[in-house]
Amino acid sequence: MEGAAGADSICQDSHRAAPKTTGSEGFSRSRETMRSMPGNCGEIRGSVQRMTPLQSLFEIEHSIVQAPMAGVQGVALAAAVSNAGGLGSLPCAMLDADALRRELIELKALTSKPFNVNFFCHTPPVASEERAAGWRKALAPYYRDFGLELDDVPAGPKRSPFDHAAADVLDDLRPAVVSFHFGLPSPQLLARVRAFRPKILASATTVEEACWLEARGVDAIIAQGLEAGGHRGMFLSEDPTTQMGSFALLPQIVSAVRTPVIAAGGIADVKTVAAARALGAAGVQVGTAYLLCPEATTSSVHRAALKSSECRHTAVTNLFTGRPARGIVNRLMRDLEYMAQAAPAFPLAAAAIAPLRTHAEALGSGDFSPLWAGQNAGLCREIPAAQVTRDLSAG
Amino acid sequence: MEGAAGADSICQDSHRAAPKTTGSEGFSRSRETMRSMPGNCGEIRGSVQRMTPLQSLFEIEHSIVQAPMAGVQGVALAAAVSNAGGLGSLPCAMLDADALRRELIELKALTSKPFNVNFFCHTPPVASEERAAGWRKALAPYYRDFGLELDDVPAGPKRSPFDHAAADVLDDLRPAVVSFHFGLPSPQLLARVRAFRPKILASATTVEEACWLEARGVDAIIAQGLEAGGHRGMFLSEDPTTQMGSFALLPQIVSAVRTPVIAAGGIADVKTVAAARALGAAGVQVGTAYLLCPEATTSSVHRAALKSSECRHTAVTNLFTGRPARGIVNRLMRDLEYMAQAAPAFPLAAAAIAPLRTHAEALGSGDFSPLWAGQNAGLCREIPAAQVTRDLSAG
Repeated sequence: MEGAAGADSICQDSHRAAPKTTGSEGFSRSRETMRSMPGNCGEIRGSVQRMTPLQSLFEIEHSIVQAPMAGVQGVALAAAVSNAGGLGSLPCAMLDADALRRELIELKALTSKPFNVNFFCHTPPVASEERAAGWRKALAPYYRDFGLELDDVPAGPKRSPFDHAAADVLDDLRPAVVSFHFGLPSPQLLARVRAFRPKILASATTVEEACWLEARGVDAIIAQGLEAGGHRGMFLSEDPTTQMGSFALLPQIVSAVRTPVIAAGGIADVKTVAAARALGAAGVQVGTAYLLCPEATTSSVHRAALKSSECRHTAVTNLFTGRPARGIVNRLMRDLEYMAQAAPAFPLAAAAIAPLRTHAEALGSGDFSPLWAGQNAGLCREIPAAQVTRDLSAG
Repeated sequence: MEGAAGADSICQDSHRAAPKTTGSEGFSRSRETMRSMPGNCGEIRGSVQRMTPLQSLFEIEHSIVQAPMAGVQGVALAAAVSNAGGLGSLPCAMLDADALRRELIELKALTSKPFNVNFFCHTPPVASEERAAGWRKALAPYYRDFGLELDDVPAGPKRSPFDHAAADVLDDLRPAVVSFHFGLPSPQLLARVRAFRPKILASATTVEEACWLEARGVDAIIAQGLEAGGHRGMFLSEDPTTQMGSFALLPQIVSAVRTPVIAAGGIADVKTVAAARALGAAGVQVGTAYLLCPEATTSSVHRAALKSSECRHTAVTNLFTGRPARGIVNRLMRDLEYMAQAAPAFPLAAAAIAPLRTHAEALGSGDFSPLWAGQNAGLCREIPAAQVTRDLSAG
């Protein structure tokens, strides 16, 4: 990943109030247009001219991006959302090249519409035996209680950054949209992706990150407010206090860049979509609201937590992977600190958690599972993904 | 303060989607009405019938409450906002009964419109010499650098909870609105306030706190999102992870209670007002956007920080008073932990900070000052409070 030098200098003055082509008005116009489309083909040509930047950019009907969610979804959810007129997403961070190829082929068979493939861009950590030992020590009481052997800890779930092997697969299968979390890949890798001309998305959690991404020419910026579930996309700072609620982050990024901005974090129904639109979003990215869909692979303990009052209390924690991510508070989070010094660097923390999680889930318990969810998890419904997508677009 | 028993049981199901009398539609209608008022008296009778719950409740023109901000404003700001058709607020937590009486008389002379007087409802802490000593030790290096004597630490700024002496003054001077932070006063004290029939407001930072307040019959609930500047109003939990961004807190409280909800946290311009309205707010409470007004008593170091790029980075800290509050990150916050175990209980932490603050401010430095500000501090402008109020209502 490149350094952050110059991020400030390329940032527009965030106090300015210049007219924007991307704004609530364009978004609002297009909604009217879209409602008038079914059975009214005479209006389509006019409608296309009045599409929002996001609808034109991705060639989709609704300005709704389904957030890629590694571990809780695969091709079925992505296909369902794309077929419903949103932008479905396939999380690829846990797939090796062969699996990535298989899933992309399968997804292409399920939908002819555009979809997004998502990759992580972290710098792989240098494993530290000292930190690993400290982490095993912190978890030892649970291993003892469960009768598990600490010496048997396997390598843990693979979470690799985007690499040339993945770029080879993309070059063959050419998805319409490619998105990145934790920054962007190296200029060389990014150039390989650009060569087949997909649209490129990335997440920003601060104004500085948005400016950094704009300077590197992404096609749209996802403004990830603090309300969002799952991993914080932060990559220029590790200070948790740089992270802002959507009410602040979204308008500030919209004001600072000319690139279309997609709001993420707390968007889970038609009212929150309208609020994001009022703050200048060109569209929204929604994850949590899809977690109870039949097309998601959300585990039964995760579904149970989402359907209970537990889902009202989420927190950002590094216990499950080593990086801060928002999930429903459970036993492990209550017992240890939410942000523990002892947790090894991303993604190494996951290894020693995995046996505890497997053991607990077999007993129907989510005590050791990452129950990723945003702060509006209470809005989740057990309905098909197509209906979630339509409902989000109905304002 | 009463305990939290039963808070959950009185809470409506937050998943329900029942029609509400308080909502974005009513808010929106009233704005049209208000625009048509000047010079168009024939419409006034019809207009009054179409006022939002907040406009009717407070008998004000705009659904804008100026947030009470102890230490940075007095009667001038409150009067300016009330005279402009909003609800001005006088922070009273740092006033003894005599000062309270003087300020209320002065405020009544400055405006004939309704205004709000605000009090804290914390339980005064038992002073611990051990904690005070630990705190002085943490601050000792600064005292040394400044050539100040640690033994001379005075008692510190007074921040008393609402009491019978204050109730006596209110009973004489009968402000139209009384608001409370950190919960509510004892049932006995609250009954004394109710006796002269003001409207009563209080802040909630969680759904549970909103339900607790509704059960005690407040007239409106301020939903204080995590973006807000100044002291977090939290009173049923001390866990910082219970605090939510406005995108989540506001719709969840609106869904859980029937009492009108006032959005606070990140509301600083007409777009953020529109977003709050989309999420069901009956009105907004705005603090930070008034900090640069000529009517505010904001210090020069505070004003300088608000006008600089520093204002982009705020954090919640307990260093200045002992309770979590959001301010612009400065030297003291960077040097110590934002939320320090060493800080004595509210409001005792302030005492040992005061000499450092005085010394630094005399040198033009805000290194030791509480630079309270919300996450949208970049929207502050140096314009009169009446103009801020009108601009917020112009959507």
